[in-house]
Amino acid sequence: MTKSGLSFLVAARQCEIAELQQLALTSELVSTIGQLSHALQKERGLSNVFLGPNGMHFNEQRQQQTAHCTHIEKNVRTHFDALDTSPTQVRNSARLFSRIAVVLHALDALPTLRQRIASRTLTPTESTAAFNRLISGLLVVVFEAADSATDPEISRALVAMFNFMQGKEFAGQERAFGAACFASGRTDTAQQQQWLHLIELQERCFQVFADFSDTAVSGAWRASQLTGVLVDLERQRRLGCTPASHQFDSSFSQVWFDCCTRRIDAMKTVEDLLYRNLRRLCERKIVQAKAELHDQQLIIDELSRQASAANADTSAHYGPQIERSVLGLVQEQAQRLQAMSDELETVRAALSERKVVERAKGLLMAARKLSEDDAYKMLRQTAMSQNRRLLDVAESVLAMADYL
Amino acid sequence: MTKSGLSFLVAARQCEIAELQQLALTSELVSTIGQLSHALQKERGLSNVFLGPNGMHFNEQRQQQTAHCTHIEKNVRTHFDALDTSPTQVRNSARLFSRIAVVLHALDALPTLRQRIASRTLTPTESTAAFNRLISGLLVVVFEAADSATDPEISRALVAMFNFMQGKEFAGQERAFGAACFASGRTDTAQQQQWLHLIELQERCFQVFADFSDTAVSGAWRASQLTGVLVDLERQRRLGCTPASHQFDSSFSQVWFDCCTRRIDAMKTVEDLLYRNLRRLCERKIVQAKAELHDQQLIIDELSRQASAANADTSAHYGPQIERSVLGLVQEQAQRLQAMSDELETVRAALSERKVVERAKGLLMAARKLSEDDAYKMLRQTAMSQNRRLLDVAESVLAMADYL
Repeated sequence: MTKSGLSFLVAARQCEIAELQQLALTSELVSTIGQLSHALQKERGLSNVFLGPNGMHFNEQRQQQTAHCTHIEKNVRTHFDALDTSPTQVRNSARLFSRIAVVLHALDALPTLRQRIASRTLTPTESTAAFNRLISGLLVVVFEAADSATDPEISRALVAMFNFMQGKEFAGQERAFGAACFASGRTDTAQQQQWLHLIELQERCFQVFADFSDTAVSGAWRASQLTGVLVDLERQRRLGCTPASHQFDSSFSQVWFDCCTRRIDAMKTVEDLLYRNLRRLCERKIVQAKAELHDQQLIIDELSRQASAANADTSAHYGPQIERSVLGLVQEQAQRLQAMSDELETVRAALSERKVVERAKGLLMAARKLSEDDAYKMLRQTAMSQNRRLLDVAESVLAMADYL
Repeated sequence: MTKSGLSFLVAARQCEIAELQQLALTSELVSTIGQLSHALQKERGLSNVFLGPNGMHFNEQRQQQTAHCTHIEKNVRTHFDALDTSPTQVRNSARLFSRIAVVLHALDALPTLRQRIASRTLTPTESTAAFNRLISGLLVVVFEAADSATDPEISRALVAMFNFMQGKEFAGQERAFGAACFASGRTDTAQQQQWLHLIELQERCFQVFADFSDTAVSGAWRASQLTGVLVDLERQRRLGCTPASHQFDSSFSQVWFDCCTRRIDAMKTVEDLLYRNLRRLCERKIVQAKAELHDQQLIIDELSRQASAANADTSAHYGPQIERSVLGLVQEQAQRLQAMSDELETVRAALSERKVVERAKGLLMAARKLSEDDAYKMLRQTAMSQNRRLLDVAESVLAMADYL
């Protein structure tokens, strides 16, 4: 049987529905990844202070958090298992799957990492770096999900969520970094610069998040950040980051850690709101697309009925009036999909900053035989010393590719 | 059973292979669409001169070409029918399918169009416009195919092909336009401007095509454009486009048409070369990806063997050495896919010019309640009167969106 233009019209809509259903599944995955990142951020912080001087009294709290993480990790693995990895079923998933492979490898290595932390055979820096890599791997999965979304509204929600999670992760890194600085008793100029850089990275992420959020979410975000906590945070940041190097009381470390934790836990309530909104958005979009498919089908049936009534004796072609209706249907759909694709491009532009930085990092790794961490450090230090944005430095690096 | 990181590694590669196989099918479709566009371009030209004064002696040639087109159209429909439109099988195809729906609708209307041409109840301008819409619909299918390709090398080949086909289409439009001008005996200033614009559009497309082609293809392109034909073409262009309005002998129309046809038929040989190269490229990529999957599987089997030999008595976890090998594998794949995605973005940037123009057109259509043709004319006339590139005008329109 020959497929008509109308059957492709229906097929296009069915593809949209299938994509939305896939996005709903991906959103669930993103939600559990958020839970795990949050729990690991706390474990990272606790491990960090545990490995510092006088850290032994953090041990019980750390062990509790480890058990909690293990529980959520099972949940994430269940979601990974539920993904349909048969190649004929899923398109454009190669990147997502390869990112998941990296995450699973890092999760497999967690028990060994924890043994070394428990036996205190790691430095706080080494421990933090291992957790950073794992969490950054989890966030890259969220990034790929945001990057592959084909619905602009869902893509917008995922971009907001990715930036929020990334901002929260920088807040977590700041917590660990500051705790280590306060525990060691003092900060040098390089540490102060790195601290300021972590603050700047957070603020940029939360700015993008705010740009992509509606007023309800922005309101919840502002309400979550209690003024009292922020005042404490900023005072302690000032102590840690100002050039006049102070000698800190090591008890500062606990005070700082608790203050940051209050702030980050409050962020978690916003993150949970983002998940709920995302889930509802996916559900709403699926219901809407199915209703539109149903309406479209009714119109098509009616047109076919009219066509066969009018031309029963002549040809299989529609009469001129019906032809105009069909033309209206196919043009409307093509224009709607084009408009969606245009809007999607605008949303995805917000993801491109990270891509530019990643690409510059890759270039430096290849050209200078650097590790990923060292390539990033090199970019960051150039940005700090030239007082330029990381994005601008990354763009300059790419522009100078031929000279490297 | 729990999926390991390695199983996601394999799944990612299998997705890549499935995507390449899908691209190979799409490339076949693009090839038949190219045949049909070429045939319709000729039918458009013949219909155009047939509808002009003294056009009756083109009738036999026109009828032959109509039969030829009908034959190739069957071929294209067969390819459309062969597409898997089940929503669970194909991702990101909504836009492609909706474009095919538009094309099928236009193809369904072809018999009626031809009847009206045969009975000479259409003006040459109306006939040309109808063919233009159909061919532009076919080219949009090629554009969507180029835009959805996930392999940068194949995407590059499709971008080159799309631009070549689009350039050839502008050459075809110039043939029809010039034939009508010469047949009518004279050109006015507006017609001269439109003529020059068609030449400029062609040259831009062929420039992008050349930028995305290797030296063998560029060489074939230069060799296909015979100097003698080009000299004739440029002399006739000068007669048609220069401000001093001449009175043309109506036999000029046939001379012009034949000269353009020689040039366009020579382009077809390059287009066929592009198809052959694309097909070979897809085949090579699939063979290569399968070989890499096979090698990867061998390494994974060997690692599993070593792991079970080393840790038969302890845990299911790999030892540290094997863990580093696994880490190497997963990181290598993630980096390779990231590099592919970055390269893809660079290639796709070449497609964005057309998207910007389309978006500006859509904006004008909505804001000024214009038809697609009129929106495009408005952009084009602004570009001509301000002596700016179409892209720049389109960008200005988008930047001024709030004021429209």
